[in-house]
Amino acid sequence: MVAGSGEGRTELTAFDRALMQAGIANLNFVRVTSILPVGTALIPVPPFTPGLLTPAVYARIASHTPGERIAAAVGVGLSARAYGVIMEFSHRGTAENAETIVRTMVQEAMALRDLPIAEIRVAVTEHVVERIGCAIAAVVFWPEAGGL
Amino acid sequence: MVAGSGEGRTELTAFDRALMQAGIANLNFVRVTSILPVGTALIPVPPFTPGLLTPAVYARIASHTPGERIAAAVGVGLSARAYGVIMEFSHRGTAENAETIVRTMVQEAMALRDLPIAEIRVAVTEHVVERIGCAIAAVVFWPEAGGL
Amino acid sequence: MVAGSGEGRTELTAFDRALMQAGIANLNFVRVTSILPVGTALIPVPPFTPGLLTPAVYARIASHTPGERIAAAVGVGLSARAYGVIMEFSHRGTAENAETIVRTMVQEAMALRDLPIAEIRVAVTEHVVERIGCAIAAVVFWPEAGGL
Repeated sequence: MVAGSGEGRTELTAFDRALMQAGIANLNFVRVTSILPVGTALIPVPPFTPGLLTPAVYARIASHTPGERIAAAVGVGLSARAYGVIMEFSHRGTAENAETIVRTMVQEAMALRDLPIAEIRVAVTEHVVERIGCAIAAVVFWPEAGGL
Repeated sequence: MVAGSGEGRTELTAFDRALMQAGIANLNFVRVTSILPVGTALIPVPPFTPGLLTPAVYARIASHTPGERIAAAVGVGLSARAYGVIMEFSHRGTAENAETIVRTMVQEAMALRDLPIAEIRVAVTEHVVERIGCAIAAVVFWPEAGGL
Repeated sequence: MVAGSGEGRTELTAFDRALMQAGIANLNFVRVTSILPVGTALIPVPPFTPGLLTPAVYARIASHTPGERIAAAVGVGLSARAYGVIMEFSHRGTAENAETIVRTMVQEAMALRDLPIAEIRVAVTEHVVERIGCAIAAVVFWPEAGGL
């Protein structure tokens, strides 16, 4: 789980810089929805070959309004013995509020499945736009422990 | 081919509930475009492990307007001996109209390829928003017959 | 690297026609982000089975405004011995401007990584909308040389 933000001359290059700050700029992401398979371990970003195709759940927000505050968050709901859920949220607002909202979303998604929550983990970032800014938060799936 | 709708406290949790009603909430979707490979069989949702990564074509619409009617549809155009096409459509309107439109889209896509239509199948749903609602319709690709 | 444009009765069928003009309509695209793995060769579209699941970076723009000019571009930044980057851009404007912008984006993304640029390649298209038009530009990843 990582988060980062940055500035660029376009939305896409700002996104690229946000990914770089998060340490995941040189991956090829496949955006997926929101289930954490049973037995998944949360690990730091492992070494990887540039261009590796990796499934990821991510929140992404860009803004062209100097001074505007943007935030992106991902939350993971872990159960003791079953699978879990992943929720993402972004808004024009603070990291603190984004974290609160994504935690509530995880609780709602776990409750919907009658899954007792063992733990909720969140990665969040906020950014005040200079010219064109982007904030991202991501859960990246590595093919196996170690990611190689 | 499935469809479903639901309410949530955010768009994403409403989406989650719509997927649950459709019987596919515990998958990780990879959104793909629109071709049905030759020899594909249309089967009911098979048993699956939560978190399975599955390609899917889907229509998704959310609304924050109480009382608003939303609808999502997917249509599959099957040819007798060749491949087929998958079209998705969603709007603020009825399921009936969404179905008509997605059927026309399938006809247009099949005609563009000079593929004679053996059959068109549609999955559609509509939903009247209470607070935050979502309607989805999806064609999910299973890795093999039985999905396991 | 390909580009194409077309008209349809809906945005999705216009997209379909743009893909057809580009020679890639019968693929199932998985949209990915922006890294060109080291050792990748740029090849013409190889023969493929309809429905093949292929990762792709693409720019896509649709318009319902008759007479409006739309353009889509993809740019690839190649380094001599390392990996490269792929940028996409679309706008309501000319192909010439879209190409200039996507080249600048590639330069920005390569500079961010301290990668010297050996070559930049661009695929771009523009389209003047008749009723509902779409322009796309794409970098499609083939599983191996020859794509089969």
